[in-house]
Amino acid sequence: MTTRTEAVKAYLLDLQDRICSALETFETDTRFIEDAWTRPAGGGGRTRVIENGSVIEKGGVNFSHVFGSGLPPSASAHRPELAGRGFEALGVSLVIHPHNPHVPTSHANVRFFIAEKEGEEPVWWFGGGFDLTPYYGNEEDCIHWHRVAEQACAPFGPDVYSRYKAWCDTYFHIKHRNEPRGIGGLFFDDLNEWDFDTCFAFIRAIGDAYIDAYLPIVQRRKAMAYTEQQRQFQEFRRGRYVEFNLVYDRGTLFGLQSGGRTESILMSLPPQVRWSYDWKAEVGSEEARLTDYFLQDRDWLGLTAPKAAV
Amino acid sequence: MTTRTEAVKAYLLDLQDRICSALETFETDTRFIEDAWTRPAGGGGRTRVIENGSVIEKGGVNFSHVFGSGLPPSASAHRPELAGRGFEALGVSLVIHPHNPHVPTSHANVRFFIAEKEGEEPVWWFGGGFDLTPYYGNEEDCIHWHRVAEQACAPFGPDVYSRYKAWCDTYFHIKHRNEPRGIGGLFFDDLNEWDFDTCFAFIRAIGDAYIDAYLPIVQRRKAMAYTEQQRQFQEFRRGRYVEFNLVYDRGTLFGLQSGGRTESILMSLPPQVRWSYDWKAEVGSEEARLTDYFLQDRDWLGLTAPKAAV
Repeated sequence: MTTRTEAVKAYLLDLQDRICSALETFETDTRFIEDAWTRPAGGGGRTRVIENGSVIEKGGVNFSHVFGSGLPPSASAHRPELAGRGFEALGVSLVIHPHNPHVPTSHANVRFFIAEKEGEEPVWWFGGGFDLTPYYGNEEDCIHWHRVAEQACAPFGPDVYSRYKAWCDTYFHIKHRNEPRGIGGLFFDDLNEWDFDTCFAFIRAIGDAYIDAYLPIVQRRKAMAYTEQQRQFQEFRRGRYVEFNLVYDRGTLFGLQSGGRTESILMSLPPQVRWSYDWKAEVGSEEARLTDYFLQDRDWLGLTAPKAAV
Repeated sequence: MTTRTEAVKAYLLDLQDRICSALETFETDTRFIEDAWTRPAGGGGRTRVIENGSVIEKGGVNFSHVFGSGLPPSASAHRPELAGRGFEALGVSLVIHPHNPHVPTSHANVRFFIAEKEGEEPVWWFGGGFDLTPYYGNEEDCIHWHRVAEQACAPFGPDVYSRYKAWCDTYFHIKHRNEPRGIGGLFFDDLNEWDFDTCFAFIRAIGDAYIDAYLPIVQRRKAMAYTEQQRQFQEFRRGRYVEFNLVYDRGTLFGLQSGGRTESILMSLPPQVRWSYDWKAEVGSEEARLTDYFLQDRDWLGLTAPKAAV
């Protein structure tokens, strides 16, 4: 293992620890359980899962470090020519499904790849981001989430947030529904445009920012009362989450294609889900407002200058 | 529309009617509702869905007849060279999710494709089959299901059942779980090895056989008592159904890729589903027996001669 890989690995393991500890502060008795696993084809991971907590219904915060001889095409967005190379991949990936429909689901991921080929320089890149999936939208939460994202990106360039925010909107799009999965955040891949140290610093900024972005939202919403009908709406919307993850998500497909540990990959799926034929929210309802207003690839921070009236 | 297409269409519409009527005999008040739809890119369908019945929790029996200018690669198992041709596709596709965990989920499909290219003979083929997904297995049901399948195939050749039974086992395999979706049945695609009339007669035999295969099983199991724990196991196993349909099923992917009507395609998804991290059935339990015994690509009719003891 190179010094770079060691440094990334140490950061990721510490990030996993810090995120789990931070999330456990919401729970009285329930704790993450840990499964350490090894992968027959090379590498392994440290899966941490929490289930049936008072706030978190199901959540997974996974660290993995895998090696392989043939990089799957899903590993890189823009460089399919690297497919088939020997590779090493490290990452932390997490999904938190709270019980209360007023608390959004969150997802975050930071990952580091190295693709190697005999006689050539290794190619490395980072990827990651975080995104939020509310069931009952709150303007305040969306602005807070995006502001933390924007502040994490700011030291790395004035356009970093807006580029990765736009990429997030594009990536987390459920094509067959023509609907975004959530209210977005950041998504990036193939990141090696800066030197290694800068890229690594950026990844750390993103990983750390997730905690600042999500915890205040959970804190604000976790004690809100909800009805059985709101719970059913949450379960119905969770179906969209499943559709995205199983049909489109490259991380999920990469994991399944590369012989990853299925239970660690699919910990992202929600605990209870409903599908109802052609269900539609009542016009003007809070449920309709989710798709009509919140799930619309909005410019939450108002960064795009409004067009001057002519 | 050619005479052939007209004949297939008339059969399929009648099959849809007969299947819906047959299934409605289990219900006292609940009936299939019908949505007729047209597809902007060409064609349309007649979706029939039943929800919250006393026996059927969610079921869809869909007829569709669509045209397009570019055949998606998922349309044919073995002839990717036809991708991109103009095409016409007709089919009936159904999935029935009963409420009671003792009643298996069933799926059936019969379809007819024509791929056309300027200056060349049109290429046509049939596909289809039916397969059963129990939650609590019953030897009697599995044997009945496969016997009806075998009898439907017998007039068309001595090896038809065993070939299409094997194809079904191969097709409905959840790779990332290394588990079959159910106890199988029949699956075939690219069928044009016989003349049109024989192929069409075969399709009719398969479509009609589904009713004879499934109804007696529903009849036998629908009044069985079940516990909340058995219901939860059913919801957990339904997760596997979702995983197969969204990750692997070519029919689903064909529909989503070809701009099909999402609600008609995804009517196949179960009404209520659970995912629990790394859940395992207790050794020796009925739940463990499902995967240990029933979901094992068995030779249910004992057609393979047992090896003589040496």
